Amino acid sequence: MNISLSPWNKLFINLHAATMADTSVPYGAVRDAAIGVKNGKIAWIGKQKNLPDAPEKLAKEVMDAKGHWLTPGLIDCHTHMVFGGQRADEFARKLQGESYESILASGGGILSSVRATREASLEELRETALERARYAMSQGLTVLEIKSGYGLSLESELKILRVIKELRELLPITIKATCLAAHVVPPEFCDRRGAYISLICEELLPQVKQENLASAVDVFCEKIAFTLEEAEQIFQAAQALGFDLKIHAEQLSSLHGSSLAARYHALSADHLEYLTESDIIEMKASNTVAVLLPGAFYFLREKQIPPLELLRQHQVPIALATDFNPGTSPINSLSTIMNLACVLWRFTPEEALRGVTLHAAQALGLQATHGSLEVGKNADFAFWNIETPAELAYYLHGRACSKLVTHGEFIKFN
Amino acid sequence: MNISLSPWNKLFINLHAATMADTSVPYGAVRDAAIGVKNGKIAWIGKQKNLPDAPEKLAKEVMDAKGHWLTPGLIDCHTHMVFGGQRADEFARKLQGESYESILASGGGILSSVRATREASLEELRETALERARYAMSQGLTVLEIKSGYGLSLESELKILRVIKELRELLPITIKATCLAAHVVPPEFCDRRGAYISLICEELLPQVKQENLASAVDVFCEKIAFTLEEAEQIFQAAQALGFDLKIHAEQLSSLHGSSLAARYHALSADHLEYLTESDIIEMKASNTVAVLLPGAFYFLREKQIPPLELLRQHQVPIALATDFNPGTSPINSLSTIMNLACVLWRFTPEEALRGVTLHAAQALGLQATHGSLEVGKNADFAFWNIETPAELAYYLHGRACSKLVTHGEFIKFN
Repeated sequence: MNISLSPWNKLFINLHAATMADTSVPYGAVRDAAIGVKNGKIAWIGKQKNLPDAPEKLAKEVMDAKGHWLTPGLIDCHTHMVFGGQRADEFARKLQGESYESILASGGGILSSVRATREASLEELRETALERARYAMSQGLTVLEIKSGYGLSLESELKILRVIKELRELLPITIKATCLAAHVVPPEFCDRRGAYISLICEELLPQVKQENLASAVDVFCEKIAFTLEEAEQIFQAAQALGFDLKIHAEQLSSLHGSSLAARYHALSADHLEYLTESDIIEMKASNTVAVLLPGAFYFLREKQIPPLELLRQHQVPIALATDFNPGTSPINSLSTIMNLACVLWRFTPEEALRGVTLHAAQALGLQATHGSLEVGKNADFAFWNIETPAELAYYLHGRACSKLVTHGEFIKFN
Repeated sequence: MNISLSPWNKLFINLHAATMADTSVPYGAVRDAAIGVKNGKIAWIGKQKNLPDAPEKLAKEVMDAKGHWLTPGLIDCHTHMVFGGQRADEFARKLQGESYESILASGGGILSSVRATREASLEELRETALERARYAMSQGLTVLEIKSGYGLSLESELKILRVIKELRELLPITIKATCLAAHVVPPEFCDRRGAYISLICEELLPQVKQENLASAVDVFCEKIAFTLEEAEQIFQAAQALGFDLKIHAEQLSSLHGSSLAARYHALSADHLEYLTESDIIEMKASNTVAVLLPGAFYFLREKQIPPLELLRQHQVPIALATDFNPGTSPINSLSTIMNLACVLWRFTPEEALRGVTLHAAQALGLQATHGSLEVGKNADFAFWNIETPAELAYYLHGRACSKLVTHGEFIKFN
């Protein structure tokens, strides 16, 4: 609760803040609070009655939040939001009893998204992704991670990453790009897996670095995707180039990709249904965040629940994300995801909110600037017309925020 | 595909129609279609190339739907949308491990909603319900059923039904009110159940009839609510007064309330997880619609799935609804409900859409005017920017429509 000497740009009064900063009270809540903003950063936050002077003397603009709750802007730290087409008809075919093999044989599955994404122009991909990102913003989001991975060729992976770069220029939120060329082995390389990995390590990643198109590299480590050894090869190349690392691991089986990620000090290991205690110990030691994705668990009707109790015991930070993608998680609201985590996995609403704020920030390496309402952090926050923060995890259909602020300025989302 | 002789008020061209009328093709779909509207009714629908004249000669206004899909306006045939307060903190307490008994002992559970609803003014209840109804409209809804049932006293049940009447006057959609005074036995009558039933039958229902505040009467028939005999008593009184009948039955156990409902020719029996084949045979014979509510199934983490295959075999019409309520289904999007039905219960997206259109209309006795796109029915429909109707059941977080029309006029929903 520092006081900056010159006036603030804005002061918001008459609000309740779920700061997510102080863990001694639920949600780090401060009721009857005020928050001062200067140069896009939080300059002051605390009980309104403790403001050092009359509001109008403290800031150029004083805004009455009318008793709404304030949270840090929500953070979706794992999405595949740039893709062509949709897979609703494939969803219908499965429900009509068609087998996955038959759908694959007719060109369905992930490869249909790859085909549609390759065929789409950069402009088409940008327009659909813009609409998706704006919807997510309506649900309180101010930080968005987007992975490539439906291109699976030099040119199409670069196209997706360039779309993400354009989104960053067009939207007033923080967008982090991750290169997931190692999503699956593309069909044209199915007999030459090594050649695809060389393409990623020797051609794609250097070019991504040169054009500054992504800050992180991700690998899907699973029987149907890349082996542990292949993942390590990609990690070595990515780390040598200075990328942050992430992994999709232990979703369908236990390959210990999360332990590998921990040894390479990856930011996060994601999915983790089949995570073991030894993986957890390694993740804790390396400060690797566990990103859990209940949307895919729900949509695929999985039965294996990630080891939440062990993660809690070992105090590994647990983030939640939408995993928004056309095949296994067509879900674009963090409130919906919070509800799934509570109902299906028995998260508390507070854990769920921490999962899409403070811990999601850490999963993106943004904990110094995002994820909680603290002096010095970015003034990125969402206002909500709710009676209690638990309401954010209460509505399965999602929850729209009433206002959204990034860098201290109101932004539009519809 | 009749042709009316004088010009239509409006003609919509360049659309694809999921008419839900013709069952010989999926969704009764007509691609490259047009729809003409006259005096609030559908005057013509068919392939655009079969229009009897040039569009501008057929209608005063011609509107280009730009390739969007058209469906009947969605129908939510089972909601408890008028309530005071919320129960998010109770949701959190359960997730923190508190027992249901302890929550009940501290005044939680349904009685906390009853208390908050009794304490709220008519205006407060109207404003929160208006916001909820408008959100539902953004998701394509044009017909809404709302039950009373959080009042449980003469005066508060009437207050809720008067709120619904005001909503009907304020919103350009069709709203059906149902009196569910027999939701649970209120605490002040716990030792005098018979007196509460007499209050309903002899005082409340006659007054509801006199003020024309509801068209149907509903009873929650379950061990924790009303017995089969009590339900029958209420049915007899309601039927004598000319109300349509509905029942909450077989949600937690098999009491055969649905068979009772069928014998009284109820419009629908709702929930039905524990429905038996003999119940189904009776429902089929009386044309009673099965209204399934996957939201409460999801939220309560139930394991018993309604007997979908038997309902299909016996060709009982199956509707889906949100059951929107603060305790067991805080879900206000029919798209979210369609997705739950598909993922959790293996509905096809087409069955799900029929469940919130044609069959939901029948569950409200509105099948002559609503639920499908056919000549003579009300011109109530939703436009969707989607590639295939299956997309309506594909996004768990819901799906906003692009435009909404009731009685042939565009209506605003935000």
